[in-house]
Amino acid sequence: MNVEYMRYAIALAKMGEGHVNPNPLVGAVIVQDGKVIGEGYHAKYGELHAERMAIESLKGPAAGADMYVTLEPCCHYGKQPPCTDAIIDAGIKRVYIGSADPNPLIAGKGIRMLEMAGIEVVTDVLRQECDALNTIFFHYITTHRPYVIMKYAMTMDGKIAAYTGKSQWITGEQAREHVQHTRNRCMGIMVGIGTVLSDNPRLTCRLEGGANPVRIVCDSHLAIPMDSYLVQSAGEAPVYVATISEDEDRIRRLEEAGVHVLITPEYQGFVNLQNLMEQLGSLNIDSILLEGGGTLNYSALTAGIVNQVQVYIAPKIVGGDGRFTPVKGLGVEHPDEAYMFQEPRVLHLGEDVLLEYDVRINAAE
Amino acid sequence: MNVEYMRYAIALAKMGEGHVNPNPLVGAVIVQDGKVIGEGYHAKYGELHAERMAIESLKGPAAGADMYVTLEPCCHYGKQPPCTDAIIDAGIKRVYIGSADPNPLIAGKGIRMLEMAGIEVVTDVLRQECDALNTIFFHYITTHRPYVIMKYAMTMDGKIAAYTGKSQWITGEQAREHVQHTRNRCMGIMVGIGTVLSDNPRLTCRLEGGANPVRIVCDSHLAIPMDSYLVQSAGEAPVYVATISEDEDRIRRLEEAGVHVLITPEYQGFVNLQNLMEQLGSLNIDSILLEGGGTLNYSALTAGIVNQVQVYIAPKIVGGDGRFTPVKGLGVEHPDEAYMFQEPRVLHLGEDVLLEYDVRINAAE
Repeated sequence: MNVEYMRYAIALAKMGEGHVNPNPLVGAVIVQDGKVIGEGYHAKYGELHAERMAIESLKGPAAGADMYVTLEPCCHYGKQPPCTDAIIDAGIKRVYIGSADPNPLIAGKGIRMLEMAGIEVVTDVLRQECDALNTIFFHYITTHRPYVIMKYAMTMDGKIAAYTGKSQWITGEQAREHVQHTRNRCMGIMVGIGTVLSDNPRLTCRLEGGANPVRIVCDSHLAIPMDSYLVQSAGEAPVYVATISEDEDRIRRLEEAGVHVLITPEYQGFVNLQNLMEQLGSLNIDSILLEGGGTLNYSALTAGIVNQVQVYIAPKIVGGDGRFTPVKGLGVEHPDEAYMFQEPRVLHLGEDVLLEYDVRINAAE
Repeated sequence: MNVEYMRYAIALAKMGEGHVNPNPLVGAVIVQDGKVIGEGYHAKYGELHAERMAIESLKGPAAGADMYVTLEPCCHYGKQPPCTDAIIDAGIKRVYIGSADPNPLIAGKGIRMLEMAGIEVVTDVLRQECDALNTIFFHYITTHRPYVIMKYAMTMDGKIAAYTGKSQWITGEQAREHVQHTRNRCMGIMVGIGTVLSDNPRLTCRLEGGANPVRIVCDSHLAIPMDSYLVQSAGEAPVYVATISEDEDRIRRLEEAGVHVLITPEYQGFVNLQNLMEQLGSLNIDSILLEGGGTLNYSALTAGIVNQVQVYIAPKIVGGDGRFTPVKGLGVEHPDEAYMFQEPRVLHLGEDVLLEYDVRINAAE
């Protein structure tokens, strides 16, 4: 075994980022006599799985070869025939696997099928790195709700804008480019109506070759203007407006413009975010980047729908009152009652840093 | 040359932390035939320098030996006779030096004295690490003003307290212990009168064997209560109250209680912080840990007296309005006008992180 081949398979898997949701990212490499003779990755939702793509890439026979694959091969018919069959047919003799299948009903079945065919199987190869590829997929497949990443950029003194409201720009180019990668990785992007009214954003992915996210607006009282960019561009990339309003006339006009209106039960006078996540999950939306203001951010935390928080911090102090704070709402009375996260991963992006926090206890599950 | 001996000298130098200000931290190691035969560090202000302590620790002759010393040896009479003489007298044949003397009038003189005596001198050995030992000393010796570290602890959403004002505790034990080390490293600790009135703090160093800092209160209108801990304990460790008040009666009573009152010119109705730093510098205070509230923090930034900012960030979100923000005051209108810092050093302290920022342009110099 040489873990470098698995590292290569991981790098291949990442090529599918933004294009396979809600499927997992998977990469596969076929090795014979210390040489890579085949490689593949899951490139697009509905198309070939990584293992089959690797097998199809072979120029000659693979008899006796090794396969390195980041996720346990499937053994059932979905949109594609089972990969285990293809591996057995190709004459591969050893399979190194990174992550186990996250579905407890299926996990281990693919491995047993391979073993019954006389193939040697080694599991947990770079397991952690392989699991990290599919945090979103593993969450979605087990909860049927989108994985929610709350993201904000603030100064060293905890502000998302100067006291005047001016916020362009808090962070530098590298950090802003990094946000584009996250937008590409997530199927949906969600904002509150406040952001639409004040910034009239496009919420597209500005990355070359990047996929445009589904755009979601929390708009409890259907205040979104018909001439906003989002409504105007509803034909180019899906726009969902979540509301508790029953204003049939407005709903009809939005729908005529191509906007999908999602009605949720009321929760304290606003959209019920848990219900909204259920609806979005059943629409195959596996991940959401929440770029809300302070009020929506706090509502998302209290609703328990947040899985990860990304805090970009610029090396700047703006001072002033704290009106432009990243998380607003009522707040908790005591630091002990705070929403708690794990020790962050730290990423340096130019002079900015990104602190990436996973929730400590996932109230959403 | 073996840099490991210099690393050892650096470790020795750190043993003096908190006890040598406003002198530099210095460590020295004497090596003969690959064996450490002498070692020393500057342990206390006014006492032996590291080089002499290392020479005194010798059990036998040091003829032909090497010395590793973190800072260029002194060649002039201060509180102690010049170290260069002692090195020459000891028969040392080679001297490895980390930092150069920060005083431009003296830098290089110690080296030339050694060379004239036939000693081989190698400079810049682990220069960066050696320089980092004495950031405070280098600043003080060139500006005659204290090096100011602004410190605050906040949540992931940029708050130093819940909306109720409750702030115990934002960060965990390891982070709070780290603050004690910084208190030990700094000669002074400064707060605003607001902190004295609301928390009645002791501002002592709770570290075993740690030195108590000089305690400084910015109290423009002399509102400090006579029964506060600070006034009551003025006999145990110095307390300075900086003010623009001319209330002779209050001043006399404070001085009778052992408090030093420093009168500064007025700046926009408050203490002139630049003038205060000049006064404190001339009182041999080389470093101050500023544990101010948001108002004093902003004043310190606008006065240009801040050299470093330490931001402790806890993995918690408390939400609520941003009243308890680490830096308050008027604030700047636009992110482009923010007070700018360099890319931070990141330290993990349990689940908290410390972001340590140096000022980008030191307005104090």
